[in-house]
Amino acid sequence: MIEVELGELIAALGGELVGAPGSASAIKLARLGPLDSADAQTLSFLSNPRYQSQLASTQAACVIVAPAMRDAAAARGAAIVTPDPYLYFARCTQWWAQRARPLSAPRIHPSALIDASAQIGEGVDIGPLAVIEAHARIAAGARIGAHCVIGERAQVGEGSRLSPRVTIGFDCVIGQRCIIHSGAVIGADGFGFAPTEGRWEKIEQLGAVRIGNDVEIGANSCIDRGALDDTVLEDGVKLDNLVQIGHNVKVGAHTAMAGCAGVAGSATIGAHCTVGGGAIILGHLSLADHVHVSAATVVTRTIAKPGHYSGVFPFDDNASWEKNAATLRQLHALRERLRALEKKITP
Amino acid sequence: MIEVELGELIAALGGELVGAPGSASAIKLARLGPLDSADAQTLSFLSNPRYQSQLASTQAACVIVAPAMRDAAAARGAAIVTPDPYLYFARCTQWWAQRARPLSAPRIHPSALIDASAQIGEGVDIGPLAVIEAHARIAAGARIGAHCVIGERAQVGEGSRLSPRVTIGFDCVIGQRCIIHSGAVIGADGFGFAPTEGRWEKIEQLGAVRIGNDVEIGANSCIDRGALDDTVLEDGVKLDNLVQIGHNVKVGAHTAMAGCAGVAGSATIGAHCTVGGGAIILGHLSLADHVHVSAATVVTRTIAKPGHYSGVFPFDDNASWEKNAATLRQLHALRERLRALEKKITP
Amino acid sequence: MIEVELGELIAALGGELVGAPGSASAIKLARLGPLDSADAQTLSFLSNPRYQSQLASTQAACVIVAPAMRDAAAARGAAIVTPDPYLYFARCTQWWAQRARPLSAPRIHPSALIDASAQIGEGVDIGPLAVIEAHARIAAGARIGAHCVIGERAQVGEGSRLSPRVTIGFDCVIGQRCIIHSGAVIGADGFGFAPTEGRWEKIEQLGAVRIGNDVEIGANSCIDRGALDDTVLEDGVKLDNLVQIGHNVKVGAHTAMAGCAGVAGSATIGAHCTVGGGAIILGHLSLADHVHVSAATVVTRTIAKPGHYSGVFPFDDNASWEKNAATLRQLHALRERLRALEKKITP
Repeated sequence: MIEVELGELIAALGGELVGAPGSASAIKLARLGPLDSADAQTLSFLSNPRYQSQLASTQAACVIVAPAMRDAAAARGAAIVTPDPYLYFARCTQWWAQRARPLSAPRIHPSALIDASAQIGEGVDIGPLAVIEAHARIAAGARIGAHCVIGERAQVGEGSRLSPRVTIGFDCVIGQRCIIHSGAVIGADGFGFAPTEGRWEKIEQLGAVRIGNDVEIGANSCIDRGALDDTVLEDGVKLDNLVQIGHNVKVGAHTAMAGCAGVAGSATIGAHCTVGGGAIILGHLSLADHVHVSAATVVTRTIAKPGHYSGVFPFDDNASWEKNAATLRQLHALRERLRALEKKITP
Repeated sequence: MIEVELGELIAALGGELVGAPGSASAIKLARLGPLDSADAQTLSFLSNPRYQSQLASTQAACVIVAPAMRDAAAARGAAIVTPDPYLYFARCTQWWAQRARPLSAPRIHPSALIDASAQIGEGVDIGPLAVIEAHARIAAGARIGAHCVIGERAQVGEGSRLSPRVTIGFDCVIGQRCIIHSGAVIGADGFGFAPTEGRWEKIEQLGAVRIGNDVEIGANSCIDRGALDDTVLEDGVKLDNLVQIGHNVKVGAHTAMAGCAGVAGSATIGAHCTVGGGAIILGHLSLADHVHVSAATVVTRTIAKPGHYSGVFPFDDNASWEKNAATLRQLHALRERLRALEKKITP
Repeated sequence: MIEVELGELIAALGGELVGAPGSASAIKLARLGPLDSADAQTLSFLSNPRYQSQLASTQAACVIVAPAMRDAAAARGAAIVTPDPYLYFARCTQWWAQRARPLSAPRIHPSALIDASAQIGEGVDIGPLAVIEAHARIAAGARIGAHCVIGERAQVGEGSRLSPRVTIGFDCVIGQRCIIHSGAVIGADGFGFAPTEGRWEKIEQLGAVRIGNDVEIGANSCIDRGALDDTVLEDGVKLDNLVQIGHNVKVGAHTAMAGCAGVAGSATIGAHCTVGGGAIILGHLSLADHVHVSAATVVTRTIAKPGHYSGVFPFDDNASWEKNAATLRQLHALRERLRALEKKITP
């Protein structure tokens, strides 16, 4: 629980204060929160004009608004005017987090097991029972959580933060300012086998994983090492939890994927794409830049044009679904019947 | 391998013994098992009347049955009559597990790393190499498995059991008598970003996770911390493995979700719901109490009424599927053709 | 980075060298790689005749080809002729991996916690901070990664390799030469509850997991212990990452499942099956041997005949999908309208 003055926040993040007759220091904030549950110590925001009606009734100490809302907001009370309220709000959360839960001073916990050949940069924090293997390199300011395992020759870039219990495989490279959550596995073997006489002969995965800067990877997600070349996530990629990235996949810069999405081997995903939760992208195909895939959609062929793509069976009450699903299995036959009828009528 | 007397079990769990001419102590049990593979030392049960025919042929030492089966069962041999045989069977498994694999006496393993400010209750068991961070509280009788990490200020309630390698993030709260399986991650960051100039600005997740009593969470499942408020699982919720719960989700009491289900951020799931394996529930919507979602269904809008909902593409041999799927992409056009035909015939 | 002579590789793996006028020792290899990005030190392969055109233009030092390609390949330069180029290539990756990253000499890391009653075979390697519990047995030549937890009485067979941070539950048995990747959880509780008065009574899972020889299990995959009997993976099964196998499932020999697939409890999967990524197989049903399930398909009933089965909603641009999906919800009604029309025309 912290309490801050609105003036400090504005001093740090900018924005124009309106609707506050007195000093911004007089307004105390104890939390960030949505308009509808805000109290007299809440900083809130209005980014979607649809919710404008909430402006009148909110109890918030201060509301972040766009220039178009300036007058309406100022009439109600204190407001910060800024071109992109949601972005400003994001920065507020960062500023807030730094105060509410400041990072501890970096230290190498005495229980961590660090190979003598590993290179540890300035100001690195290494948690209890972490294992840093031979020739690994942890750059300045990186934070390695408890129970992490950093494999031989792996690299973690400047300022990157690994939550407890992250595994980085040998030879894998993590860029700068990345965030990797607990349970993520970077650099397990890709899934490759040659069939022979009814069994599977393993194809050893000789590549690694290369991850750019400012990448975030969710809890228990997996990024497999490449078969021959590397699997690559470019700068700014954001992956949610339980995401699977197969071997030799390339994910373009600033692409985001929601939870439980899976990308099969050797797919190439463009930059600035979004992939909804539970979507599956098959292997050996490509998505152009700026492709948006709906949740739970299965992408079975290359998408060459930017756009929004979907493929989800619409859910229904079970009885209706059963009738439609059963008919669906005769759809092709229905089309033939329709065609026959058309011929009969208009010969 | 254990051997117990039927009489001990009945003494502990109740039920009426029928069909056993001698003493219940004379009947020895070595295992619990299904009717069809039961042997002369197996305790079995008949909960579904469909399987009544197996009663005649089973070799089981004793069968748990409902009152309606009393005579048929007694004619065969020993039987326990009880109103709900499946529930009785569940309690047998608990009774059995306590004897077959009794909990070891609680101990704090000397290799565990426990911050001096953490509060550890009476009779707590802490496994090898567990890490308990500052101000964490582990209540009486809780068991923390090997390699668990309990973050700062996190709480684990009375009698809860964490399997090896569970991560509880800072500030998260676990209720009483919960069971959390290996690899689960409670309190990773929710997936929140503000888009700006083609990249993503992180929204720090300022909430935590609150989990009620008697909750079970499967292996490698993830429950993200809330953005501003907390993510909440109410009492009695049961989640299978590899389940994803996004930030700010509320899951109502006694709701169960099968493996690989995913719930996107800010969804509100009612009480007493069931969600089938691999189902996806989109964000910012709600499910009423007593909603049942079939496996692999994608819930794309609010469900306000209790009931059973489905949405799965019916599988078929690949050739048939291909024909129907191809036609499906013209379904709207087919409807238009049908409409035109109808007009022509009945103008 | 290693450099090897082509002659050494052929001496180890066989195959006939053609198209190389000088000695095979004169050809130096620095990597394995695809035809199109090969350089003068790359060993490449041509397994799919579709890519034959790349043969003329590749810069590869040597190409692995089938007998039918002998002349075309020899005209270009060095080639290895072998009946199954892809299989030969797989063996090359194994041979290569042994040289590029030879296994370290086995050692028991001093930080590992090994119960005095555990049996550790000859030449076993145990990584830092691994926990081996009472009466566990680790057979000769097995390698247990850092941070693994091997439960009481669990067994790991000869030559099996566990990556860092694998959990093997009590009583579970892993065969010989298995590979288990980081984060996998073998032997968490199956998901079993008896409903009673609006809540769930836990069914203790009294079985274990039995895994055959030569099985590979991907990162963060989960294999649950059986309720009464064991969950079983037969020899040669290959599972990718984030795969869920419910309690009492049987997976037949040499069956492979891609990432994010899920199999619900008590399903029986035949031998030599393949299950695509994200596919869901419901519980209590069976798949014959040699059944192939497409990615993201939901198998809702038993499949008794070998073959290829699919059930995926074809994706489309969002607007087209919306129109077709909306119509799909009236499909049964459309069929009725068509039927009525047919009657009218051909009474």
